[in-house]
Amino acid sequence: MSLSGTATLCARRGDAYYPVSTAAAGFSGDLAGFLAAGPEARARLEAALAATAQGAGISAASAQYLPVLPTPGKIVCLGLNYTDHAAEGGFAKPDYPAIFLRTPSSLVAHGADMIRPAQSEQFDYEVELAVIIGRRTRRAAVEDALSSVAGYSVFNDGSVRDYQFKSSQWTIGKNFDGTGSFGPEFVSADELPLGAKGLRVTTRLNGTLVQDADTADMIFDVATTIAILSECMTLEIGDVIVMGTPSGVGFARTPQLWMKPGDVCECAIEGVGSLRNPIAQEKPGR
Amino acid sequence: MSLSGTATLCARRGDAYYPVSTAAAGFSGDLAGFLAAGPEARARLEAALAATAQGAGISAASAQYLPVLPTPGKIVCLGLNYTDHAAEGGFAKPDYPAIFLRTPSSLVAHGADMIRPAQSEQFDYEVELAVIIGRRTRRAAVEDALSSVAGYSVFNDGSVRDYQFKSSQWTIGKNFDGTGSFGPEFVSADELPLGAKGLRVTTRLNGTLVQDADTADMIFDVATTIAILSECMTLEIGDVIVMGTPSGVGFARTPQLWMKPGDVCECAIEGVGSLRNPIAQEKPGR
Repeated sequence: MSLSGTATLCARRGDAYYPVSTAAAGFSGDLAGFLAAGPEARARLEAALAATAQGAGISAASAQYLPVLPTPGKIVCLGLNYTDHAAEGGFAKPDYPAIFLRTPSSLVAHGADMIRPAQSEQFDYEVELAVIIGRRTRRAAVEDALSSVAGYSVFNDGSVRDYQFKSSQWTIGKNFDGTGSFGPEFVSADELPLGAKGLRVTTRLNGTLVQDADTADMIFDVATTIAILSECMTLEIGDVIVMGTPSGVGFARTPQLWMKPGDVCECAIEGVGSLRNPIAQEKPGR
Repeated sequence: MSLSGTATLCARRGDAYYPVSTAAAGFSGDLAGFLAAGPEARARLEAALAATAQGAGISAASAQYLPVLPTPGKIVCLGLNYTDHAAEGGFAKPDYPAIFLRTPSSLVAHGADMIRPAQSEQFDYEVELAVIIGRRTRRAAVEDALSSVAGYSVFNDGSVRDYQFKSSQWTIGKNFDGTGSFGPEFVSADELPLGAKGLRVTTRLNGTLVQDADTADMIFDVATTIAILSECMTLEIGDVIVMGTPSGVGFARTPQLWMKPGDVCECAIEGVGSLRNPIAQEKPGR
């Protein structure tokens, strides 16, 4: 099933959203509440939806989105997780993932402006698969790791490149306010191939295809990544893992290509969703 | 004033803690609630305390601590922020701070075990000044930046070195469960020199002095760091900035020195506090 990143949790059927009666489904609040209620909440939610999802619903085009999970406990990001992207940046194929964290304050929703900061023109796109954890996990074996996944979404890991490379650590260039987009929906894992493998992943900037790859080409796939991370840290329900981007990013192009105010960036993953954001200049005086 | 990292917010007088009647002081909950209530809550808290802090109080030695702020919105850490520590690791003196994030799930309290993970013996100490933000801040000028600081605490930025250096990004080695200690107390900024400069900062491992420096020797001082970070991200009330460690860490020694089960590590900053933790081995089957 597909659940929207909206203030009231909604389930999608076709092009329409239907608000979920969370009281009838036995949990409170939004997607985080649904995930916290555990796998058995799913059947209750389906039943509540069947009883109430009548009429036209809310059209997906008019829905007001939030980030799918606005305040995850942690957002763990992988860098250089496609061979061709590592190569275009001049990096060797890694034998351990490059890992950094994003803060929730860097997130925006589907449809909202992604903010180019005042002091940089090097604002770059990165389409990525987002993995949403549904079970508290520590030291998962690779063969069991996918049972920790509740579902997936799309992430645009917007990066301020000159800041990313001001020191050896990329974190600051990945955490500017309003630079990371997350949505539009949560798609439960059962709707997708195992480990979300074999899905086309694309970015279009102003309609031009600039990234085009397949999730099967990740160096560290979803199961392996969960095993690696959970060897070190407990993955909690609602945590998000952002799986890295393929080649085609703006900073590796000749000439370089940056997102600028007025542009529209659309990151899509087959079967998961299409995440669309206009680019806006940071307003002075923030 | 000094406020404890305990389940019930307490103020310290001498060696005793007195529970704070937060209802009388007009805010709810713990230190995060006090900070969120803004600077004017301080006088109310002092008045409530004067009216109620009678008798012997709770002895500081018997208090049950939590991390000073158990779930900060973000924990922003600086690396290589003392010239001598950058040099001992073979790094050049930076012209921009190396920044990474820690997740709250990596935190433990004063007095609690710091956990050496099963798969590594390279568990290292790092004493650091922790800065606690008291005002929402974006694009602070250096000369105004200290007005964003509510107070200070001590942080032991425990690091799993082989994991820290498995890729170019240090984050994973800084985020193992139960490896970062934070406390014992919040000390309001007015109790300390401006910018917490000129304070002796030490680590003792099993009583032996292994780090000994002065907070005045930071490359990027507190005000400069707040200006640099807030150029990129909004600092929110309750966010924590961990200011980097001086020389003397275990991985740079010959022979290398690691924390092992049964050790006791004590990180102290003059006027801010002494943060003491036993080291324990990770329990199997977590």
